[in-house]
Amino acid sequence: MPPAALRSLIEHADRLINAGDFDALMDCYTDDAVMIIRPGSSATGKVQIRQAIAEHFEQGLQVSQQAVQEIIAGDTALVLAETRIRSGESTWLWHATYVYRREADGQWRCAVDNSYGTSLLDPAQTARSEGEIR
Amino acid sequence: MPPAALRSLIEHADRLINAGDFDALMDCYTDDAVMIIRPGSSATGKVQIRQAIAEHFEQGLQVSQQAVQEIIAGDTALVLAETRIRSGESTWLWHATYVYRREADGQWRCAVDNSYGTSLLDPAQTARSEGEIR
Repeated sequence: MPPAALRSLIEHADRLINAGDFDALMDCYTDDAVMIIRPGSSATGKVQIRQAIAEHFEQGLQVSQQAVQEIIAGDTALVLAETRIRSGESTWLWHATYVYRREADGQWRCAVDNSYGTSLLDPAQTARSEGEIR
Repeated sequence: MPPAALRSLIEHADRLINAGDFDALMDCYTDDAVMIIRPGSSATGKVQIRQAIAEHFEQGLQVSQQAVQEIIAGDTALVLAETRIRSGESTWLWHATYVYRREADGQWRCAVDNSYGTSLLDPAQTARSEGEIR
């Protein structure tokens, strides 16, 4: 797999989110994917994930990736990403952790979508990561 | 899988590391596992991982886990852990990210071992995470 190929998949998913095309977005996730909605709350499977994303992004938020690091072990990968979310004049920066898996059809899909990264370990840090940065 | 089962696997690996039993430790990793040694440097596969761990821990370091969060998606899991490393009077605290995979024999093994967590995205943060905390 060429370097940064997973980054391009995440950027493709970002474009679908930003366009509100949540049906197409669901092909970016495995059937058993888990998304952290907020600390203590998660969505499992495409139906729940679609609903959670639609609720978050229906208000015109725009998501993009800044720095991205991929660590690939065979058909499993950890992706670390600096994720930027814009809403009007405000911008939030997250250090996200995604796990991707290459499935039987050869496609890489997201199995774990955790925008909170390691801040889930520390509620105080979670609050800071939600702070407005500019 | 019962809650905290992956935590118990990581604690088992910690005991093997602390005892210097690196041969037994290698069964905790998938054959294609990747371990981040330091930002920009990684080990791939059991031979390289064994060598890297032996070099780090031969000086009597003791590793343990504090807070642990598991996010399990089918046979793939992201584990976030506050990892404590002690050497003499000094203690370092890391926010680590591990990816575990359940293999054909039913055993969960570590496919990505990244003690640096999302600090890999930000070299300045990496330096802080190495700071002595007590």
